[in-house]
Amino acid sequence: MQTPDETNATPATGIAARDWATAAADPQYRAAVVDLLGALAYGELAAFERLAEDAKLAPTLADKAELAKMASAEFGHFERLRDRLAEVGEEPTAAMEPFAAALDGFHRQTAPSDWLEGLVKAYVGDSIASDFYREVAARLDSDTRSLVLAVLDDTGHASFAVEKVRAAIEAEPRVGGRLALWARRLMGEALSQAQRVVAERDALSTMLVGGVADGFDLAEVGRMFTRITEAHTKRMSALGLAS
Amino acid sequence: MQTPDETNATPATGIAARDWATAAADPQYRAAVVDLLGALAYGELAAFERLAEDAKLAPTLADKAELAKMASAEFGHFERLRDRLAEVGEEPTAAMEPFAAALDGFHRQTAPSDWLEGLVKAYVGDSIASDFYREVAARLDSDTRSLVLAVLDDTGHASFAVEKVRAAIEAEPRVGGRLALWARRLMGEALSQAQRVVAERDALSTMLVGGVADGFDLAEVGRMFTRITEAHTKRMSALGLAS
Repeated sequence: MQTPDETNATPATGIAARDWATAAADPQYRAAVVDLLGALAYGELAAFERLAEDAKLAPTLADKAELAKMASAEFGHFERLRDRLAEVGEEPTAAMEPFAAALDGFHRQTAPSDWLEGLVKAYVGDSIASDFYREVAARLDSDTRSLVLAVLDDTGHASFAVEKVRAAIEAEPRVGGRLALWARRLMGEALSQAQRVVAERDALSTMLVGGVADGFDLAEVGRMFTRITEAHTKRMSALGLAS
Repeated sequence: MQTPDETNATPATGIAARDWATAAADPQYRAAVVDLLGALAYGELAAFERLAEDAKLAPTLADKAELAKMASAEFGHFERLRDRLAEVGEEPTAAMEPFAAALDGFHRQTAPSDWLEGLVKAYVGDSIASDFYREVAARLDSDTRSLVLAVLDDTGHASFAVEKVRAAIEAEPRVGGRLALWARRLMGEALSQAQRVVAERDALSTMLVGGVADGFDLAEVGRMFTRITEAHTKRMSALGLAS
């Protein structure tokens, strides 16, 4: 039998060992979590909007229903995050607004021009979001972590996209080159907007670099972005989109 | 104590007294229900799309979330109706496609040009749909009726719109005239598309006029449209949109 400390790379010490009531006594930690929930909530709402929009590109009603299902799931996530903000006494809109420009910017820069681009975006977005939720969960108090993991548990609705993209590339290999470029552009734009957020939001960035309680440093946030990028690259290769 | 026959205007006889397995032995009734489920499913999917689109017109994030919530609920209804089609051995896409032109036509002709038009459309659409679900439920076998009533139970998410539209008219009474015209146009377009469907879909129309088992006649379908129109007019008056 392993002890919990042996099974987890990050043992539950510092923030991770505290509940919200204890952790939020530190105003900087509290501000960081409000930022995080605001960013995630707006991200889910924006994802809902874009997926609903991109569903219009679907060639069949069944395809449209798949993307609409993802959109609907994102809306459910948005509601949980927004309700949590209200529960801790924050005005959800005020918490979300600082992140609107970056997320809207990302979606404006990456509007898919056809169904396959829409599918790749749905899959890439879903995967990056999952990776980020998983990374950030370890830096949170137990109550916020439970919420983040619950939302994470309900992601992964994009797996239908993998099969369809793979089939399209097999049918016409030339498509692969175009979609590989597209996937790189998606990741590049995501990183560029993430860096904008990190630069602008002190409390959130400080939490991400571990300035509040745990032992992360600035290099660690860079490593997190690197891990997410590497996971993305692996997924794209598996999909036949080696770049 | 009242007996069920005394509490309901329409006693459970004919189709209403049968379950799906018994009722669907009649191929014309079966075709009518497949038509109905296909029309309702496509209607819910189209409503999801349009509400998600119209949510972009929202002046605040909270308003956007309200309309997005409706969209998400419509998607849930779509899933139940689609799953029921699959359950009775029908291909959902094939069942929905005959109704795409009429429903897409309705939405194309009634794209709101601003947030208030979007709110009125959400409320009018939700209310007309509820009325239609309630009307048609009485003409269905017990299993199909349960599904239709379950979906109906989950509608009514548009009540938030009432308060907002009323406040806008109070703030600027001139708005009322414009929205009253808009509401009439919505109802006119809905009736015109409904008549197109009635003209094109024999099995469904026959069921609606009672040709399968119960005692409805052609005048009855006209009366149903009249009842729905009257209910709409009353709601619009209550909203300050007397036309």
